Amino acid sequence: MKSRKSSVPVAFCWEMKSQTAPIPGPRWGGCQAKAIVRPASTEEVSKVLKLCHAEEQSVVTHGGLTGLVGGARAGKDDIVLSLERMNGIEAVDTINRTLTVEAGAVLQKVHDVAEEAGLLFPLDFGARGSATIGGNISTNAGGNSVIRYGMIRDQLLGVEAVLADGTIISSLTGVIKNNTGYDLKQLFIGSEGTLGIVTRAVLRLRPLPRSRNTALVAIEDFERLGRFLRDMDSALGGTLSAFEVMWNDFYKLIVGYTGQHGQPLQPSHGYYVLIESTGGHEEADKSRFEGALEEALEQELIVDAVIAQSKQQREDLWAIRDDIEGLGKALFPAITFDVSLGIPQMDDYVEEVRKQLTEQWPDSKMVVFGHLGDGNIHLVITVGSREEHEVRAVEAIVYEALGRRDGVISAEHGIGLDKRAYLKHSRSTAEIALMKTLKQALDPKGILNPGKIFEQQKDISS
Amino acid sequence: MKSRKSSVPVAFCWEMKSQTAPIPGPRWGGCQAKAIVRPASTEEVSKVLKLCHAEEQSVVTHGGLTGLVGGARAGKDDIVLSLERMNGIEAVDTINRTLTVEAGAVLQKVHDVAEEAGLLFPLDFGARGSATIGGNISTNAGGNSVIRYGMIRDQLLGVEAVLADGTIISSLTGVIKNNTGYDLKQLFIGSEGTLGIVTRAVLRLRPLPRSRNTALVAIEDFERLGRFLRDMDSALGGTLSAFEVMWNDFYKLIVGYTGQHGQPLQPSHGYYVLIESTGGHEEADKSRFEGALEEALEQELIVDAVIAQSKQQREDLWAIRDDIEGLGKALFPAITFDVSLGIPQMDDYVEEVRKQLTEQWPDSKMVVFGHLGDGNIHLVITVGSREEHEVRAVEAIVYEALGRRDGVISAEHGIGLDKRAYLKHSRSTAEIALMKTLKQALDPKGILNPGKIFEQQKDISS
Repeated sequence: MKSRKSSVPVAFCWEMKSQTAPIPGPRWGGCQAKAIVRPASTEEVSKVLKLCHAEEQSVVTHGGLTGLVGGARAGKDDIVLSLERMNGIEAVDTINRTLTVEAGAVLQKVHDVAEEAGLLFPLDFGARGSATIGGNISTNAGGNSVIRYGMIRDQLLGVEAVLADGTIISSLTGVIKNNTGYDLKQLFIGSEGTLGIVTRAVLRLRPLPRSRNTALVAIEDFERLGRFLRDMDSALGGTLSAFEVMWNDFYKLIVGYTGQHGQPLQPSHGYYVLIESTGGHEEADKSRFEGALEEALEQELIVDAVIAQSKQQREDLWAIRDDIEGLGKALFPAITFDVSLGIPQMDDYVEEVRKQLTEQWPDSKMVVFGHLGDGNIHLVITVGSREEHEVRAVEAIVYEALGRRDGVISAEHGIGLDKRAYLKHSRSTAEIALMKTLKQALDPKGILNPGKIFEQQKDISS
Repeated sequence: MKSRKSSVPVAFCWEMKSQTAPIPGPRWGGCQAKAIVRPASTEEVSKVLKLCHAEEQSVVTHGGLTGLVGGARAGKDDIVLSLERMNGIEAVDTINRTLTVEAGAVLQKVHDVAEEAGLLFPLDFGARGSATIGGNISTNAGGNSVIRYGMIRDQLLGVEAVLADGTIISSLTGVIKNNTGYDLKQLFIGSEGTLGIVTRAVLRLRPLPRSRNTALVAIEDFERLGRFLRDMDSALGGTLSAFEVMWNDFYKLIVGYTGQHGQPLQPSHGYYVLIESTGGHEEADKSRFEGALEEALEQELIVDAVIAQSKQQREDLWAIRDDIEGLGKALFPAITFDVSLGIPQMDDYVEEVRKQLTEQWPDSKMVVFGHLGDGNIHLVITVGSREEHEVRAVEAIVYEALGRRDGVISAEHGIGLDKRAYLKHSRSTAEIALMKTLKQALDPKGILNPGKIFEQQKDISS
């Protein structure tokens, strides 16, 4: 390996940067990589990859290290390529409403720069203070605003990436519509660094909302929850921007156990929804939001509601939904899941999993919450230990019941190493074969993040 | 070629189905293909492709034949695979709000079925009565609602496609979020039938709007036009669903020449915008829409406006924008363009093209209109003939001025055969090489729609 001869800074890593993920993924150890390379430009990334390609040296790309599935885990034979020095915001275009950034730019900084320009970058989730745009792209990050704005896939206009052999693919267009041949950026979105290393991106910005209305509501049964979602989506016509559901166990645990939150609603109801609407007209939007909730109360879809009357109150409501730290402490050691399935199957699914867990581990606990409007829920489970065989047994229960309902084993976290064994629950043999065809075509030596998503013949990291 | 031995109906084509495109693409002749194969199921498509693959027989897929770039043109050595028998709507799911359809389903039928279920499939454009979902997917169709809902890429949850060797890739998931490995459907969206044949799809439906407000407004200068767009996007906060701009020449020609339309606004203004907002509350949305227009009048962004007071009035306003037939007659023989570029560059671009055209052809005419909110405009030009060398000379003017402004030669129509020579204006050598790598990986014998988008070594159709 000749990379130390290049001008790219190289450091030897003895300790991995602290894991900032809210709930640490399983089996995460310290960094075992040979070295960390920290290029400062796309050209330097290209140089590194040319060298690694020539030497058949495996490369694991690092962003903010907030992933939850071991997608950035490096083995002792790997080189880590960190994008931490490529963290610049290169251009803000307020007319075309785009932001050109380097891949190492932290999501929170992107939010701030957009907002200073009077605009919004809507991708948002708890790890915003550490997660980077490059990591967001390579995992197709979702979060709290997907119901309104989609995943990051829908918020990207252009991408620059470096292929395994060092070729720079610069598709940094800032136009919204571009049907000139294959949309190559799609290759790099959600492929977890296995097909190329994203170095820069053009992000699409949106108008900064002029109004924001937030409420926490309580609902007694799941059927009403589904109807409430559909009614709000219609009534708020394009302005519904969050519909986050907490099952009773989640709410009770967070407002009870942590002692960090007030109790805006009694903890005795079946489901709690944090609902938010953002729009263009303060008074009209407020009256419409409150009117829609009143109608839902009259129709007995919801049994109680508290509407935030200030920014502080809004933040307090969100703090309940976002208290993943409290959750992690209460359910230590936790095993976490991130699944998609049809809304009509959801409640029955949760109950089946809960029943099976209780049969096997009478003291087990499970809390459920998530982005119901997107058909995506998170399950956080503890059975008292995280021994390998127990994790496997829990996974078997969760994924087997999911497979019978045509569910998807990863809605937003990706596959990485931790869910690789279960990929076949959500994808067919033909699909996985086609993924391998793509991998072979773009990275025939298999040097980019090897072994992530699916096993490779030359599988270094696993 | 052994396909006649299979159970798949085969017809020999002497005449091509009539061309239903609003403005016929250049150099379109009758069908020259050896035969048309009309499979009735995905399995039959697979059988056909297995046979063709074994014989290295080229296959051109046909949907509604409304394309504008010769993407479906077949040569005398090709087999045409028509999906006209695979036109079924297989399932409507009103809870998860999805529609599962065969690729040959006509867009208008999809609209109707969705609406009967109280839902909306928002993809919409003039050729809705003939264009098929499969064709929409393979060209990543856009249209009038992109500003609100995106292209069809954003409205697809699952796709089933058949690869060149007959392998069926069935990714017919109906979930919104699915980060389980590579998003394979992206390969088939916008790749114009060169990487696989789409056979079925799961479409995402939206709530049917409860309100629709439509206006035609007049604006004097381009700078105000851009400000008006940004202001409306903010003020209507998520409910803006169309922002279609007509340059003065378009409006004057359509309301004057055709004699088919009233004159809702005087034809003396610089620009006309058909603006529409759809939402969830009839009264509140109306008052917000009218309030926003009043504010724009007060701020002198717009000089005149007419608001549709009935469904008929709304249809009359849209009929002006949609009168592509009248346009085609008035500018016969027309050369049409579909470009994306930054809004700040747009007016200057149009004026430069107009000036150059007039210098070369003093009697030439050009009208401009399009989806300004998406940065996409259409240019329709006539220089009195469509001789090959004149078409080339016009293309040179249009694309050269565009290239200098980092524009894109095809926003929504695709590349096909007609724009292939200009692909390099919008995509780099490295990008085109990567497209060819993908083509080689998925279709190594080059039998699928050969020669479309870019030249292949084995180039049958061109």
